[in-house]
Formats: sequence, C-alpha cells, structure tokens
Amino acid sequence: MNSVTIILSMAVLAILTAVVYALKVTRIKVGAEGGKAEETKKLLEISTAISEGAMAFLIREYKTISLFIGFMAVLIFLLLDNPESENFHDGIFTAIAFISGAFISCLSGFIGMKIATAGNVRTAEAAKNSMQNAFRVAFDSGAVMGFGLVGLAVLGMITLFLIYTGTFPEVNKLFLMESLAGFGLGGSAVALFGRVGGGIYTKAADVGADLVGKVEKGIPEDDPRNPATIADNVGDNVGDVAGMGADLFGSCAEATSAALVIGATASALSGNTDALLYPLLISAFGIPASLLTSLIARVKEGGNVEKVLKIQLWVSTVIVAVAMYFVTDVFMTDSFEIAGKIITKWNVYISLLVGLFAGMFIGLVTEYYTSHSYKPVREVADASNTGAATNIIYGLALGYQSSVIPVVLLVITIVTANLLGGMYGIAIAALGMISTIAIGLTIDAYGPVSDNAGGIAEMAELGKEVRNRTDTLDAAGNTTAAIGKGFAIGSAALTSLALFAAFITRTKTTGLDILNAEVFGGLLFGAMLPFIFTALTMKSVGKAAKDMVEEVRRQFKEIPGIMERKAKPDYKRCVDISTTAALREMILPGLLVLLTPIIVGYLFGIKSLAGVLAGALVSGVVLAISSANSGGGWDNAKKYIEKIAGGKGSDQHKAAVVGDTVGDPLKDTSGPSINILIKLMAITSLVFAEFFVQHGGLILRLFH
Amino acid sequence: MNSVTIILSMAVLAILTAVVYALKVTRIKVGAEGGKAEETKKLLEISTAISEGAMAFLIREYKTISLFIGFMAVLIFLLLDNPESENFHDGIFTAIAFISGAFISCLSGFIGMKIATAGNVRTAEAAKNSMQNAFRVAFDSGAVMGFGLVGLAVLGMITLFLIYTGTFPEVNKLFLMESLAGFGLGGSAVALFGRVGGGIYTKAADVGADLVGKVEKGIPEDDPRNPATIADNVGDNVGDVAGMGADLFGSCAEATSAALVIGATASALSGNTDALLYPLLISAFGIPASLLTSLIARVKEGGNVEKVLKIQLWVSTVIVAVAMYFVTDVFMTDSFEIAGKIITKWNVYISLLVGLFAGMFIGLVTEYYTSHSYKPVREVADASNTGAATNIIYGLALGYQSSVIPVVLLVITIVTANLLGGMYGIAIAALGMISTIAIGLTIDAYGPVSDNAGGIAEMAELGKEVRNRTDTLDAAGNTTAAIGKGFAIGSAALTSLALFAAFITRTKTTGLDILNAEVFGGLLFGAMLPFIFTALTMKSVGKAAKDMVEEVRRQFKEIPGIMERKAKPDYKRCVDISTTAALREMILPGLLVLLTPIIVGYLFGIKSLAGVLAGALVSGVVLAISSANSGGGWDNAKKYIEKIAGGKGSDQHKAAVVGDTVGDPLKDTSGPSINILIKLMAITSLVFAEFFVQHGGLILRLFH
Repeated sequence: MNSVTIILSMAVLAILTAVVYALKVTRIKVGAEGGKAEETKKLLEISTAISEGAMAFLIREYKTISLFIGFMAVLIFLLLDNPESENFHDGIFTAIAFISGAFISCLSGFIGMKIATAGNVRTAEAAKNSMQNAFRVAFDSGAVMGFGLVGLAVLGMITLFLIYTGTFPEVNKLFLMESLAGFGLGGSAVALFGRVGGGIYTKAADVGADLVGKVEKGIPEDDPRNPATIADNVGDNVGDVAGMGADLFGSCAEATSAALVIGATASALSGNTDALLYPLLISAFGIPASLLTSLIARVKEGGNVEKVLKIQLWVSTVIVAVAMYFVTDVFMTDSFEIAGKIITKWNVYISLLVGLFAGMFIGLVTEYYTSHSYKPVREVADASNTGAATNIIYGLALGYQSSVIPVVLLVITIVTANLLGGMYGIAIAALGMISTIAIGLTIDAYGPVSDNAGGIAEMAELGKEVRNRTDTLDAAGNTTAAIGKGFAIGSAALTSLALFAAFITRTKTTGLDILNAEVFGGLLFGAMLPFIFTALTMKSVGKAAKDMVEEVRRQFKEIPGIMERKAKPDYKRCVDISTTAALREMILPGLLVLLTPIIVGYLFGIKSLAGVLAGALVSGVVLAISSANSGGGWDNAKKYIEKIAGGKGSDQHKAAVVGDTVGDPLKDTSGPSINILIKLMAITSLVFAEFFVQHGGLILRLFH
Repeated sequence: MNSVTIILSMAVLAILTAVVYALKVTRIKVGAEGGKAEETKKLLEISTAISEGAMAFLIREYKTISLFIGFMAVLIFLLLDNPESENFHDGIFTAIAFISGAFISCLSGFIGMKIATAGNVRTAEAAKNSMQNAFRVAFDSGAVMGFGLVGLAVLGMITLFLIYTGTFPEVNKLFLMESLAGFGLGGSAVALFGRVGGGIYTKAADVGADLVGKVEKGIPEDDPRNPATIADNVGDNVGDVAGMGADLFGSCAEATSAALVIGATASALSGNTDALLYPLLISAFGIPASLLTSLIARVKEGGNVEKVLKIQLWVSTVIVAVAMYFVTDVFMTDSFEIAGKIITKWNVYISLLVGLFAGMFIGLVTEYYTSHSYKPVREVADASNTGAATNIIYGLALGYQSSVIPVVLLVITIVTANLLGGMYGIAIAALGMISTIAIGLTIDAYGPVSDNAGGIAEMAELGKEVRNRTDTLDAAGNTTAAIGKGFAIGSAALTSLALFAAFITRTKTTGLDILNAEVFGGLLFGAMLPFIFTALTMKSVGKAAKDMVEEVRRQFKEIPGIMERKAKPDYKRCVDISTTAALREMILPGLLVLLTPIIVGYLFGIKSLAGVLAGALVSGVVLAISSANSGGGWDNAKKYIEKIAGGKGSDQHKAAVVGDTVGDPLKDTSGPSINILIKLMAITSLVFAEFFVQHGGLILRLFH
C-alpha cells in the first residue's frame, strides 16, 4: 500500500468512528426508562434551550466568518496571483485551499457542538443509572469531535494534495505545497473567531451570570431563575468545544503545511510522494492509535476518572511512538538533504518522539501547577488568608513560575529536533506533539459535556446521587482541561516556529542577525504584541460582561415573578447579547492579529517581519502559559478552600473568589487566544511570502 | 582645552555643586526660630530614628556587598587573567575597575541617603514657614544626590581612563576600554543590591506597616505608635534614593563602557582621545546644563509643583541638546568607520538627540498612564465599582497597554540610531537618554525626601497647614517618580542593547541568525527569565512582609501601652527585621541574574548566550513597563477615589486598596529590578567575553 491509500483509509476510519460514536450517543433516549414525566420534560426543555443557544451562536458566528473568509479569499487572490512568473496561478489555488480549510474547520466545530449539546443531557440521563454509563456517554460525545475533526482535516488535506499534484504534475511541488498552506490559514482564521470570539462569549456569559445571580441575587450557579444560565452553559461549549477544536485543527493543518513546504525544498522528498506525505502519515496513524485506546476507557462506580483519562493520553502516546517506528522505516527516504544538512529517517523519527513526549511532560507540569493536590495551588490558597491582594500576588507568581519547565522542555525539543532534522525536524516535532490529537480532543470535549451535564442535572433538580456523579465527572474534566491547554500552547509554539522557518526558507531570507536593527526592532515590537493583545481581550470580556450584567438586571426588574419561579426569564435574549458582544468585541484584537504581519511586511520588509514573528512567539509562549496557569491555579485554589480549607463564605474564600474572577478571562480568553496570535501571524506571513518578496519593505526602500 | 580637562572640570563642578547644596541643607537648624521645644524634640527624635535606621541598613548592606564584591573580583581575576595572550593583564585591571565602580556607587548611595535623611526633617521644618522654602529644601537635598553621583561617576571613569591609558600607552585601546567596562559591572552589581534588596526592604516595611497598623489596628499611616513606621520611612529612602541612584549610576557607567568599547574598535576614534572620550563628554556636559536649570527651580505658595519639576526636565533637555551641538562639532572626528559603516559626527549627534527626546516622550506616556488626570487611571477607578476583581483586570490591562508607545519609541530610537551610527549610535542614544541624569536624579530623590517630610510632620503632629504643604510636595513627587521609572527602564533597554552589541563586537561573533536553533532556544529561554525573576521578587516581598507583620503583631502584644502612647515601640527591631529579610530574600533572584550568563555562556556558548540576552531584553522591557505602570495606575486610582470619587471607606475604595497592594511589589520591586536583570546580564557577558571565547560552549563541543 502506498501512503496516499493509507492516509485516505485512516481519514475514512476516523470519520466512521465519529459516526458510530455519534449514533451511540444519540440513540440514548432522554427519560427512557421509568423516569418521571416532569423531570424528563425539564431535562428536554433545558437541553433544547442550550442546544438552540449554541446553534444560534454558531449560525451568527459562521455568517460573520463567511463574510470575513470571502474578503480574505479575495485579498489572497489579488495579492498572490502573479500569472507572469509561474504556470501555476498561486493566488486562486491558495484561495481555494483557504476556503476549504475554513469550511472544514467550521464543519468540525458544528459537528462537535451538535454532539456536545446532545451528549450533555444524555450524560445527565445516564448518570441516573451509573457512573460507568454517564462517563461513557460524555466520553463518546467527545470522541465524535475528536475523531470527526481529525478525519475531516486529514481528508481535506490529502484531497487537495491529490487534486493539486494531479492537475499540475509539471509544477514545482514547492509552489503546490505553498498553496496548500492556505488550508492552514483557513483553519487558523476560523480559530481566531473560535478562540477569541468564543473566549469572549464564554467569559462574558459566565461573569455576567455570576455577578448578578450569585453575588447580587444570592442564587446558586446553574439556577434556572438566572436569565444568563443558558448562555453560560452555551459558553462552555463555545469556548471548550468549538474554540479548542478550531485551535487544534489549526495547529494540525499549519504544522502539516509547514512540514510539507519545508519538505518540498528537498528533492529527495519532493520526488517521492510516500516520503513527502510523511507529515500527513503522522496524523493518520494517530487515528488508529487513538481508536484502540478509546476502546479501553471505562470507569467503575467510585473509580478515579482523572486517572482513566490520563491513562488514555499515555497509552495513545506509546502506541503512536511504536507505530511510527515502522511507518518511518517503510515510508521515509533513508536520507535527504535540506539547506545543506543531511537528514536520515531516524533523525526524523527521533524528532517526532521528542515532540510527542515533550507534549506529555508539558501537560504533567501544567497539572502540577494547577491541581490543588500539589504545593503551588495550596500556597495560593494559604495566601488568601491574608486577603485578596496576596491571593492575586501569589497567583500571578504561580503563573510566571510555571512557565519555566515548559519553556525548558520546548527549548530542548527545538534544539534537539533542529540538531537532528533542521527546521524539518521542528515541524515534525510539532506534529508529534499533536499526533494523539484525536484522543486529546476527545478528552477536551468530554469536559464541557460533563460540566453541562452537571448544570442540567442542577437545573432539572435531579437527585443528589446524580449530581454527585456529574460532579465527579466534571472535576476530572477540569484537570484534563489544564493539561489540554498545556498541549495547545506547546504545539502552537512549535507550529509557529515551523511556519516561521517555512516562511524564511520560502523567501530565501538571509542575514536575520539579531543585532540587525530591523530584526531587533521587530523583535522588541513583536514581544509587546502578546501584551497588548491580552489587554484588548481582557477588556473585551469586561465590556461584553457589562452588557450581560445590564441585561440580566433588566430582566430581574422588568419580568416580575422570576425569583418566585412564577415567570421564566428570557434566556434567548441573553444568548443573543453574549453573541453580539462577543462578535463586536473581537474585531479590534482580530484586526491586530491579521493586519500586523501584512502591514509590517509591506512597509518594513521581511527582516522586520521575521523579528516581529520571533518576538511575539517567545514572549507570547511565556505569557500564554502564565495566563493559563495563573487562571487555573486561582480556580483550583478556590475549589480547595471550598472543599478542604476555610469553606464557602469564609474570608479566605472571598479572597479566592477575586482571584478566580481575575483568572477567568486570563485562562479562557486571553491566554488561549495567544496561541492563535502567534500561529496566525506566522501562517499569514508564509502564505503572503511571495507578495512580501515582490512588494515588501516600502519604507525601507524609500530610505535606502 | 582638550576633552580630558573639560571632563575633569565638569566632574569637579558637579561635586562642588553637591557640596554647596549639602551645606545649604544641613545649615538649616531644626526648630530654630521660636518653635515649640516639645515639637522640636519630637522632630529630632523621629528624624534621628529614620536616619539611624537608614544607616543601619546601609552598613549591613555594604558589609554583604563587600563580601560579594570581593568574591566577584577574585572570580574576574581568575577567569579573565590570561598573561600569555597579551602584554596587558586584563584580569587584574578589570578587577580594579570593578572594585572602583562598586565603591563609587556605594559612596554615592551613602551620600544620597545621608542627605535625604537630613533633608526630610528640614523640609518639614521649612514647611512651617512657606511652601517655597520647603520645596527648595527638598529639591536641594535631591540635588546633592543628583550632582554628587554624576560627578563621582564621571570622575571615576576619567581617572581610570587616564591611569590605564597613561600606564599602558602601547596596549590596544580596545583591551583597555574592555577593562574599564569592569567599572560598569561594579556599579551594576551594587545596583542589584540597591534595586532588588532595597526594593524588597521598602515594600516589606510598607506592607508590614499597613497590614497590621492600618488594617488590624485601625491607626493612620505614619502613626508613631506603629512599630514599623520608621522602617517604612527608611524604606522610602532605601528604594527611591539608594536603589534608583544605583540603577542610574549603573546605566551611566554601562552605557559609557559600551560606547567606549565599540568606539575603540574604530581606529579614527582610538587614535583621537578627544573623540574617543565623546561618551564621557555627554555626561560631563549634562552637569552644567542641569546646574543652570536647577537654579530656576522655585515654587510659590499654592503654585503647581509638578509643573515646576517637569519644566526642570524640559529645560535641561533643551540645554543639553544645544550644548552638545557645539561639543560634537569641536570634539568629534568628522567621520569614522565601524564595522564597515561610515559614521559622520552629525550622525552621532542626531543619535544622541533621538535618545534624549525619546526619553522625554517615554516619560510623558508613563505620566499619561499613571496620573489620575487622564482616562486610563480613571477607568481603573471606575472598574473598582464592580469590585476588586475588575479593579485588578483593568489595572493589569492598563499596564500591558501602556507598553505600546514606549516600545514603539524605543524601536524608532534603535532603528534610527543604528541607521545613522550603527551600534555606536545606539550606545550614544542610551547616553543621550540619561544625559540629564543630574536633574533627573535630583527630582527622583526629591520624592522620598518630601514623602518622609510628610511622614515626620504627621508623627510629630505638626499643624494642618504644614501637612498640607508637605502633601502637595509629596503628590508632585509621585508623578515625577513615575516619569523617572519610565526613563530608568528606557535607558536600561538601550544600555543593555549597547552592551550586547559591544559583547558581540568584542567576541567577533557572526551567524546570530534568529533561526539558528542555539540562538532561538536562547531567545525563548531568555524571554522567560524576566517572568521567573518577577515571580521570585514578588514572593520575596511576600515573605519579608510576613516577617515584618509577625514582628509588629508581637510588639503590640508584648509591649503593653503602645496603643495608649504610654510605651514606645521598638522601631529598631523592625528596621532590623526588614534589613535581614531583604538581604536574605534577594539571594535567589540575585544568583539567577549573576549565574545565568556565566552558566549559559560556559555550557552552551556565545550564540546561546546572545539569544538569552536578546530574549530577556525584549520581554523584560515590556514586562518592566507593564509592572511599573500597572502599579502606578492602581496607586493613583486609589488616590483618585479618595479625593474625587467614592471616598475612603467606600466599597470602591476597598476594591482599589487591593489593586494598590498588588501593585506595590510590582512597581517598586519587581518592575525596577528587571532593569538590573537585563543590564547586569549584558555587562557580565561583556566583561567575561574573553573567557567565553576561550572556554565557552562546553556542551556543544561535546556534541559536535
């Protein structure tokens, strides 16, 4: 079998797996066996509201995305089409790849949201019977997203590859791969909406619901009387299912694009389709590895859910490591040359392993810093005894400190992969890190499904045993969510570096000396970007949350009888407010990300742009890790106090709530959005590389 | 006249100015004219306690510094002495320059502290009579520090220059200038203690005094019943006089060293002493410019103090700009060549101007973001209405946003200066930025003197009119302190870059391509350093403050009658606690700064080290600006609420107090310490350059 057949089969396998899991979940009937009619009615009512809210958001978001994608596609076409220089019309084919990437990312997000909002109520339903069942429903729902997304991504890329190489057999593979990079840009552009817009949505709803509901009205979380409660539950899906999915879809597509472009510069690879497609083989073989692993996922009553999920990650990692040994041996050329460096297939394989295991260790470190089983979070909880200020100081310090080991791991990965495989090695390491993405995303999406299930159980007033089960599921999801964030930022860093390398390779830029003033100026400017981006997204959440607070207050005032459960709040309007605010507030940060590389490249040229990319990358990685872990630390310090220390209502708890509220936008909006900032700037540079070569550096040309 | 004579005369002029101002201040007798004996007794008692506390701290600190300097001097001697390669024994002469720099920095700090602790009580005394008098006493006290420090710095450098060049006329100037760089390292090493140790001291005392005094006991700030109140007032001097002085002394000595080393690589400069000494001429001509300006500093009753201080900065800036036109014309060679670039004297002059004015604008932007006359601080105050969490979120966002314009100004400075004068231009721009350092430091030291004067007036229970006068003086000091911090970080950035360039020039390193994995790995690792450094220093403050809180609580418990004013608290013990804690808690961050460049250079070589320096520089600048301005913003948001909005005791005020407490270590310890981090790592690299060339990159040599 050749690699094309294998990749196609694996993609189909993934899609079939997703379909089977989807059928398994949707087959479950809500309120099937002897449930109380009243309870079932409530369950359905609430879950319908959430799923309608989620769809309402997605439809609005996709409308905006369509306009944006259309505009970008035209821009790509205009800036890149250069019919004179090549037989191949770069512009039009890059635009097609771009639209395909965006479409498939949207489709994956849509499927993920559909199943997540079907799975949440069914998890609650299953929790009536047993822990094992409930766990499996939530897990299977996540698996639909995990496998569906990877399958569609791989299928999309291999199809475009076949079409482009089949239609233009005579064109240099490098140009074809470059056009294929448009696929990554499309995925990443959607991720901008998913992560930034979705991040603003989820936190605006969360903060809005909490501030009026919990603080002003004194009603518990997920209380059906709170008008923003549905929006809050929708937000969990928007941020952690659609947002995270789009982010990792982007990483996968972008790292693949980078590896293909760099690989195509080696004649030994561009002439050997099996070897050239090695990057896609990595993602393809992650599919059966994840599938095998997913079959063993089961939890007994009272079992340790967190452990089960972590074992999933380890087992799939080991399977991929072993499988890729044989894949490398069979499909990779024995050795090839890139930029004067001889790279053997075993160099490539070790680069992959380094990325794969670095990802796992980054995940473990993230867990250490954000779980209340360990010292750092307990220190923050202790510091809350002396008030909110010390809680904030220790939480910030926790985040800053937590970046050390992940950064060292990334440095080791970069240096080793580069030593062995040059920039190609780094792209492969990035792919290695996300090769188990199907299982990773399954676990990521499992989180909001369980969280929602808990919310629905609360709102439908199901029994205490049911709530206990959903709480246990949810708690495990929180820890794995932190691990997932570690993966996401680690892979974003390597992906950006690989894209950056592809950009430099492509533009044949030399003399990127740090001390070159253009480069250094870019470096300093770039290092500032993640900070301003964080400031913008934090304030966006603040503004969107304010809209929500006003709406919730209005409803409590103008709709009489809400508090007495005599009247129903207008959930839809809150969903609408969150949607509108999120899409409005993402414009400014979104423009910053998209326009910066284009403006810098056009006005100041490739060297300055390279500096900006590198500066944003290095400071962005540290700030993203810090933001995510400070936020996670504050969240779990609060939970630790609730469960083990001072308890709810204590002064210690009040101080911890401040940290938790500060951490919310940091960990769920600003931090993860930095992944998109660094990746999107890098792939935009790569896609527009030819344009910068032709027209870049306007101002510098005026001076020289 | 040749440049040597001029530089010597100006240095002497500065020292004489300092002496005259010192006599002017100390001549004032406390309680001279018809004061009440009781009041006078109290004034003297309190001011003696502060001045004894300050001296106690300095003596302990200098003891520790001596040990450390001795150890470092031996290390320098051992690592750098290479009698075989040159006639000139680099090690011993670098060590001598190092010890001289450290000694002179300590001496300047000592003089500054002496006069500040004499000036504070005399300012309070003068405030009994008139605003004008009080202002002038505080200003004159600051001037002793400002002129004394610059005079000694310039005198020290020119003396060493004359001795080295006179004794070794046959040795290549480059080696001599390199040894001279030891002077900068010495100054910077003292600044590590001043900024980090001093920063921990001042905030531990401040937080300790506030937490027990204000919060637990409900007594006002500067209440003599609070055992930590003297330590708190000592801390203002330690941090803002000695710390800031050592920091700027370091910048001045380091930027001069960098310019001399880079300049010495040009034969047209190394053969022409007048032109070679141009960097010292800049600092020298800043002295008469500052002196002229200082003569016009006067404030009428009810006048705008802030405006008077800002005019000081502008006038001295303009005078330096004009004076340097003629100095450049007379002393600079018409054109010279460095690294293949032809540089004319007007290129050098414009580089200087760019640095000079960029500094002013960075100061103005800092003021915009930290004064409550403008929108950003008011937004933070508004956000405090919805609680501490939104106060924190908006304050963090303010800091992040405030970095944009300073970074852009620095980028413009770097690119322009480099375009005109290569790396020499950047060193000159750094010197330009701090050329008005005499007046800048005067204003910086004016702040804690006024602040102390207010504290003394409060403790001695002087009349309300007196307090109003000292409050007005103090308020203006807060704004100019923010401007001073802007200067300090801006000059630290340019200085570090110049040192970095000197290091690269010296080691003849090429191929510092960003995409080189060693460089990029260093870059990423370096970008993480300011974050871990901030985490360490923030936690150091927390731990030191905890010691102080326990001591203050103990005294209230064990010494009966403190609250009833029947017994006096043991102030000395609190001073002692703060001193011990500060010196203990600075060890870890101090080692991080000092050992990182040596270990990285030794194990991974010059390219990795260059990456680390650049990474730390770019992320450090942004984090330092953000930390300082977030802190300043929170502080003034609180003051705005006290004066104009909700008022003391309101919920809005309580929320703002949280931000203020978080901001304290950020703006007075962690943020300013980053200046030292980036400068000290760069000058350490430069001084040990020869060692790295000979022995660096151990691990890389094992692999290759």
